[in-house]
Amino acid sequence: MSVLHNEIHEQPAALRRALSEGRAAAQGLVDAARQRDVRYLVLAARGTSDHAATYAQYLFQIVCGKPVALAAPSVHTLFEAKVDYRDALVIGISQSGAGDDINAVLADAREAGALTAAVTNTADSALAGIAEHVLLCNAGVEKAVAATKTYTTTLALLALVGGLWGEHAELLENLDRIDETADRTLTGAEGQVVPLASTLLHAERILSVARGLHLCTATEAALKIAETTYTATQSFSSADLLHGPIASVAVQTPCLLFAPNGKTRNVMGELGTKLRERGARVIDFRPDPDADVTLTDPGTELLSPIVDILPAQLLAYHLTVARGLDPDNPRGLSKVTVTF
Amino acid sequence: MSVLHNEIHEQPAALRRALSEGRAAAQGLVDAARQRDVRYLVLAARGTSDHAATYAQYLFQIVCGKPVALAAPSVHTLFEAKVDYRDALVIGISQSGAGDDINAVLADAREAGALTAAVTNTADSALAGIAEHVLLCNAGVEKAVAATKTYTTTLALLALVGGLWGEHAELLENLDRIDETADRTLTGAEGQVVPLASTLLHAERILSVARGLHLCTATEAALKIAETTYTATQSFSSADLLHGPIASVAVQTPCLLFAPNGKTRNVMGELGTKLRERGARVIDFRPDPDADVTLTDPGTELLSPIVDILPAQLLAYHLTVARGLDPDNPRGLSKVTVTF
Repeated sequence: MSVLHNEIHEQPAALRRALSEGRAAAQGLVDAARQRDVRYLVLAARGTSDHAATYAQYLFQIVCGKPVALAAPSVHTLFEAKVDYRDALVIGISQSGAGDDINAVLADAREAGALTAAVTNTADSALAGIAEHVLLCNAGVEKAVAATKTYTTTLALLALVGGLWGEHAELLENLDRIDETADRTLTGAEGQVVPLASTLLHAERILSVARGLHLCTATEAALKIAETTYTATQSFSSADLLHGPIASVAVQTPCLLFAPNGKTRNVMGELGTKLRERGARVIDFRPDPDADVTLTDPGTELLSPIVDILPAQLLAYHLTVARGLDPDNPRGLSKVTVTF
Repeated sequence: MSVLHNEIHEQPAALRRALSEGRAAAQGLVDAARQRDVRYLVLAARGTSDHAATYAQYLFQIVCGKPVALAAPSVHTLFEAKVDYRDALVIGISQSGAGDDINAVLADAREAGALTAAVTNTADSALAGIAEHVLLCNAGVEKAVAATKTYTTTLALLALVGGLWGEHAELLENLDRIDETADRTLTGAEGQVVPLASTLLHAERILSVARGLHLCTATEAALKIAETTYTATQSFSSADLLHGPIASVAVQTPCLLFAPNGKTRNVMGELGTKLRERGARVIDFRPDPDADVTLTDPGTELLSPIVDILPAQLLAYHLTVARGLDPDNPRGLSKVTVTF
């Protein structure tokens, strides 16, 4: 078996570790945020970590009522702007903690008066040194280029901070058993995903769609499939897809639709109907036995993104293998991407 | 000629009108923002207007030093969150001013204590009624489904607010003659774009790439081409493309690279080299006579997005006509998109 496949299956244990060992640091960050009367959040991240930031963008607004901005790193690196970050909590997210651009945002933010935090898998990274508060993924070394366990542990740590800050008992209770939910999801999904992958062997384009809080699942699924299988994948918010790009969806285009239980389920169902009318091939990820891929309900939709990505990771893996490609070392990619 | 082609060429006059008639309202908004000691901005928009919001996201950070968040409308509509918007300026952007989701964000924000503003082409719209300050595009009725003149006039109004707020003399001076720059761009580009469109006749996938402040040009170009020609277009920040999706770029894939003069030009040049090494077909939009499409330098890169999109609009139009499609009424789209 490949490194990627092993790392996908390590996620239940990694989640358990991240949450138990990260509890004190998360509480410390929340205490500081309350003490400093933080008014809004800024999240700085790239690639997979940016999808975790998208999750937090929704979560912190819904659970804590705080506005959330996603940082544009080039504002700091290329345009050298001086941004006034008083009243802000600025969180840098990076598994390696080695990206110069994210580190520049954090350093500037700390100097400008923000409360700063890092979510990283690397305790001795530059990012961890810059930020006042550090949340560690504790995911163990991640060897596959395609990030999996650092992504889900990052989501879990962000959920922990949001749950503590917003004093959201339901979230925190279900987060305590998210490792078991992840385990059940992985066990159930593999049998559905292997035959599904074989039907996508010749797909040249795949769309990946979700809405709102669950958008991160669609974007992360699209990236996993793109970077391992080299398929032209594209992710959309269902709202944005309807605002124009739906015109480009051709007959038989495979569309992955993520529709967990909760507030977005109906709009995703309506989108599925519209896409089927256009002749697209809808592939449903839903918490129902008769879905193409059966999701597991984690007890609150606020946590669904942590487990809904797991079957999509398995799909990326099995499609890569079915195409005779190397899942652990995609062409032209490296584990740490340097951007300026 | 089609309505779309006419509207593309109406833009110099529309820009002149928007800026001269919008000056007092822009100054009024800036005065209010200073008086209220606004600490950060939130922009709410969908589709093409969301690309204008992306421009403002960079511009207000660079020119005014204010953090900028892009609103996630479903936080308000589907998840019914109560977000604390004290200290914020919340700007809704919508040509029709009729989108329930954007209007819900503005109404919630005003109730939660934000300073509110609207950028719209419709003076008697619901959005204009909700916001305290209204900036009118004054673009005249836009009949083509693909928005053109409402996009560039929106950018110009946002640049006007940013320039006044940041007291950026160079920006304001060059903005005063942006209509002439737009005119020169349109005149020069059409002769290059018509033969270029014929080489893209059978392209099934087109990438559109820029960086930082200019990302809006790549995203808007991709949307224009997708909604009128039904091509599977996809836009990327050059940084994000390198973080994984570059693995999916196949030989001969046309890649539109927007590289105006300024801070992003070198990184775009390096990306072009990397894409050529992979066998992709790079189509350069640069302010050089030997570029595939020659951009016009507006005197400061802060304003480049207002004029750099014009050749891409023409490319979308001419590719649509070359494929025998109707540029004015793309299949499955309507002028006002209702999302929940």
